[in-house]
Amino acid sequence: KELALAPKDDFDRIKMEDLLKQKFFFDQSFAIYGGINGLYDFGPMGCAMKSNLLQAWRKHFILEEQMLEVDTAMLTPEPVLKASGHVDRFQDYMVKDLKNGECFRADHLIEATLEKLLEDKKLPDEKKEEIRALLPTIDGMSKEDMGETLKKYNMKSPVTGNDLTEPLDFNLMFATSIGPTGQIKGFLRPETAQGIFVNFKRLLEFNQGKLPFAAAQIGNSFRNEISPRSGLIRVREFTMAEIEHFCDPNMKEHPKFAGLADTELMLYSACNQMDGKPPEKVKIGEAVKSKLVANETLGYFMARIQMFMVKMGVDPTRLRFRQHLSNEMAHYACDCWDAECKTSYGWVECVGCADRSCYDLNQHTKATGVRLSAEKPLPAPISLLCILIFSTIDVTECAPQKGPLGKTFKQNAKSITERLAGLSLEDINTFEQSLNDKGSADVVVNGESFAITKDMVQIKRFQKTVHVEEFVPSVIEPSFGIGRIMYSIFEHNFKVREGDEQRTYLSLPAVIAPYKCSVLPLSANPEFNVLVQKLSSALTSVDISHKVDTSSGSIGRRYARTDQIAIPYGITVDFDSLKEPQTATLRERETMKQIRAPIAELPGVVKNLADGRCTWEDVLAKYPLFEQQESTK
Amino acid sequence: KELALAPKDDFDRIKMEDLLKQKFFFDQSFAIYGGINGLYDFGPMGCAMKSNLLQAWRKHFILEEQMLEVDTAMLTPEPVLKASGHVDRFQDYMVKDLKNGECFRADHLIEATLEKLLEDKKLPDEKKEEIRALLPTIDGMSKEDMGETLKKYNMKSPVTGNDLTEPLDFNLMFATSIGPTGQIKGFLRPETAQGIFVNFKRLLEFNQGKLPFAAAQIGNSFRNEISPRSGLIRVREFTMAEIEHFCDPNMKEHPKFAGLADTELMLYSACNQMDGKPPEKVKIGEAVKSKLVANETLGYFMARIQMFMVKMGVDPTRLRFRQHLSNEMAHYACDCWDAECKTSYGWVECVGCADRSCYDLNQHTKATGVRLSAEKPLPAPISLLCILIFSTIDVTECAPQKGPLGKTFKQNAKSITERLAGLSLEDINTFEQSLNDKGSADVVVNGESFAITKDMVQIKRFQKTVHVEEFVPSVIEPSFGIGRIMYSIFEHNFKVREGDEQRTYLSLPAVIAPYKCSVLPLSANPEFNVLVQKLSSALTSVDISHKVDTSSGSIGRRYARTDQIAIPYGITVDFDSLKEPQTATLRERETMKQIRAPIAELPGVVKNLADGRCTWEDVLAKYPLFEQQESTK
Repeated sequence: KELALAPKDDFDRIKMEDLLKQKFFFDQSFAIYGGINGLYDFGPMGCAMKSNLLQAWRKHFILEEQMLEVDTAMLTPEPVLKASGHVDRFQDYMVKDLKNGECFRADHLIEATLEKLLEDKKLPDEKKEEIRALLPTIDGMSKEDMGETLKKYNMKSPVTGNDLTEPLDFNLMFATSIGPTGQIKGFLRPETAQGIFVNFKRLLEFNQGKLPFAAAQIGNSFRNEISPRSGLIRVREFTMAEIEHFCDPNMKEHPKFAGLADTELMLYSACNQMDGKPPEKVKIGEAVKSKLVANETLGYFMARIQMFMVKMGVDPTRLRFRQHLSNEMAHYACDCWDAECKTSYGWVECVGCADRSCYDLNQHTKATGVRLSAEKPLPAPISLLCILIFSTIDVTECAPQKGPLGKTFKQNAKSITERLAGLSLEDINTFEQSLNDKGSADVVVNGESFAITKDMVQIKRFQKTVHVEEFVPSVIEPSFGIGRIMYSIFEHNFKVREGDEQRTYLSLPAVIAPYKCSVLPLSANPEFNVLVQKLSSALTSVDISHKVDTSSGSIGRRYARTDQIAIPYGITVDFDSLKEPQTATLRERETMKQIRAPIAELPGVVKNLADGRCTWEDVLAKYPLFEQQESTK
Repeated sequence: KELALAPKDDFDRIKMEDLLKQKFFFDQSFAIYGGINGLYDFGPMGCAMKSNLLQAWRKHFILEEQMLEVDTAMLTPEPVLKASGHVDRFQDYMVKDLKNGECFRADHLIEATLEKLLEDKKLPDEKKEEIRALLPTIDGMSKEDMGETLKKYNMKSPVTGNDLTEPLDFNLMFATSIGPTGQIKGFLRPETAQGIFVNFKRLLEFNQGKLPFAAAQIGNSFRNEISPRSGLIRVREFTMAEIEHFCDPNMKEHPKFAGLADTELMLYSACNQMDGKPPEKVKIGEAVKSKLVANETLGYFMARIQMFMVKMGVDPTRLRFRQHLSNEMAHYACDCWDAECKTSYGWVECVGCADRSCYDLNQHTKATGVRLSAEKPLPAPISLLCILIFSTIDVTECAPQKGPLGKTFKQNAKSITERLAGLSLEDINTFEQSLNDKGSADVVVNGESFAITKDMVQIKRFQKTVHVEEFVPSVIEPSFGIGRIMYSIFEHNFKVREGDEQRTYLSLPAVIAPYKCSVLPLSANPEFNVLVQKLSSALTSVDISHKVDTSSGSIGRRYARTDQIAIPYGITVDFDSLKEPQTATLRERETMKQIRAPIAELPGVVKNLADGRCTWEDVLAKYPLFEQQESTK
């Protein structure tokens, strides 16, 4: 409902969605039970495409950079997400219809209502100015700001016109409880990243203690969206592919950056957004040099992301990188560029590329006491003065609580020991002086003063040579929303054949096309069956997914059907195929051109085309063209 | 704790688990937070192996049989799982420690306690007989049976020795609520199958209405196990790969069965289990002929499952198919064979192969009113007598509630109409007779009688020619537990080099090995680096995952390390590699033999080996052997 008010271009989304439903790329989950908003099922075509996309992602990122892929639990106990900040801050504000209880996301409702107001021709110009100035600030509004805005413009439910509540906090995580006693509270993870952070020690060890390295994870995450109504763009369960690149905070250079420095990206900087200026095309090398993009590693990933998106079928003219404004940055991020794709829903964030600094590792260290840090050799060993204060206890007995400090101060002994360990060099000197002069020294813990006598503690000074420096790595995180990328690819590749409005098709690149090839007998002539079976087996043996369509209908109509499910290549067995030497035709989806080649060679040709080892132009040059009018009549 | 009591063979599980943890194949999730039982994270090695296993599964099953793969939501609203029977019946019985509240699975506790009793040498023989007879019946015990057994043997908590509660019901699904109002109750799916069943109509349509067809899904499922303590064998979150083969209940033949009929399987029939006889090796063709295995399709999948498992590295001598006893069958199954692998935990169910008949489709039809059925052509069209009873309403007004039936009976009109539609032929005749004779007829709904008058209804009889028959398909379901299969593969491939107890390794087949190849410079000589980089790039370009190990240590020690992470092939750059023509050595993990080959040829050779297009014997025959003592000293 809110989204019906969002800006649209003239793209015929209904027509595309009809195709995607009809060919079961995806559709609403549990539809026979009335459906659940924000949950979608991928059918055979969508699932194959998704699986191909993920395999391509693995090759492009994990294999290319030798990343460490992990696969961690989705069920996550509360303390982990408390530490990461999600329990306290991973929330949206919602407003409820006062009469029927229907919930709306406050920011979406405000945006949609304001945009609707702008359409009102009778609205005075100064009011319009005011609204235009307000719109870009919505993302950064506090709960109070939203409350005021709702009141000021007297906003109502867009569905019923009823009054609305004040904005309410709503945490977006799905809660559950783990185990039979109900005592372990847990959530479904809202991102896959935390599963990597809590494994940092193991991964560092696996990498033999060396930095930088990147870990990656493909998996599902869950967000209990308040009112999801934008198809695959806003869903409650979704597949992410996340990379966490760990590096020394002072060394964010990237060895492969130079090779990509000339890549041009469309950058929409925070400044340009604030100044109302458009995005600019910039070479990533220059963007890093001018500090527009914070560092080489961030820049390297941005260029690699663009390369990947374009290879997968995203239209490069509808792709840009938008920098987050400081007021919209996630609680963990210190710089962030979103790869956004233009769709009929507007510009949609598909990949976030954030510098999370050392936020997450620090938080988990604080929560667990396990130091999530790395070490690096110092340029030269340094000598440190160490001072140890310890209570004089009989260590051989291993019973520190029986030592004089423990005996005297009982339950306070622990806090006193901690206080002593935290003394500064100066404090220690004063403390020692007092012990020596008066035989005792005072220590204040929680406002209470305790007199420590000479028999209770010993102070020992020694020099220690240190060869390594401990530090908490920075994390640079490219995070891919797979469903949103798929949706953008659908919009960017939904086409209509020139001169035939009814003949829609999807021009997906072969690498993600659900089937790489179709095998069609020209007619129902049973003599064709043997050849069709032979071709099908040969294609299977070279791992080429394909569809055999023996249904009736003209060959043109069947080509049109295969175009709709984005099959890039089609082999047709015809009467000439029955003669020696056996040949068949091969058709390509975009050009609709056909060649004729020996049947024995065709599976290899399709394999090479599908794997990108040769182009359709190569094939056209090698084999004779087969001329035939294509008609769906 | 219970499992510590389970039977063990002399396999050194601790030693293997040390290796798997140390090399981060997998480990407990959230360990830095104390860990959660039954949740595991796969590290880089386990994740790569899992991903390879799933890709192999896709090729072996989905591509080979042109199955329709789907990817459906994990969050599932309650009505779906109510219909499937999971809300009412997907449960275990648990007992609680009366003092500390610790929970145990009742059946596991009973089994472990009885087995411990058997170890008692002082136990009289007749008591032992009794226990031995009781053991195989535990799986089928009712709550009451369990309660009696607990009392009879005076069972206590194995941890504290405290008294226990009676067995209590515990539903194994994780509950959550969907949406901001908290009104939609949902669960995390306990199996992926239901996501396929609720999409049956769309899938049938995608398959152009034709049966049989199979749909498949790879994805995670969740079971809130009461007390999981057996590593990857019993977990709360796990990846499944499920196939639902839909077919006509009267046509369970399979076109490819003949080609596999001679495959020998180790079958452990229900009869043999009851009679205390061992499993028998049987050709699947004979097993189907003798009706031991219910039908060809079930038999076909069993043979294909065995083929897959062995290809993935399961030891065929530790693989058997066990038929479910009638009392242990899941609530939906009508016949079931489990592929079980022998491990140190005993025989573990890794793949269930069940005939679910038409249970699920019927249940969802009942719950939704959407007919989940298929049609098949009748051998000859038949003529049916149809009788239609409809209330006389002004159809052009499209307002049936204003018809005379509605006007008279108001809120009862709907139930009356339904009652009328359900009348038998005989009832209709009586009803019509009464209308004609008395001008009215009585209909009883929910014990109340309603007088229907002539002006309220019309009865129309006509003949209809029917060409197709509607039926509810049967479902045959092979269901793979990926974690359990991986665990069995680990145990079956954990080995120790002869004569060197410390040198453990994993003999995973190349198809699932995490890395296919290692690249090792013989020493830290910087001249080797260029060649190592060149080889690494060349391997990446043919999609061969590999590990470059430039760390110090003898070459033998580094080979030993690569053996531990199951790398099947290793390329070593040595001083001869620097001379023209450049060559390097290639080593194979099992034989530890090495050959010498031109560097330019090696990536292709490894690619062919990894893809199974050539064998190590082929390579040994083609290239000269390179003799070198391998030592880890």
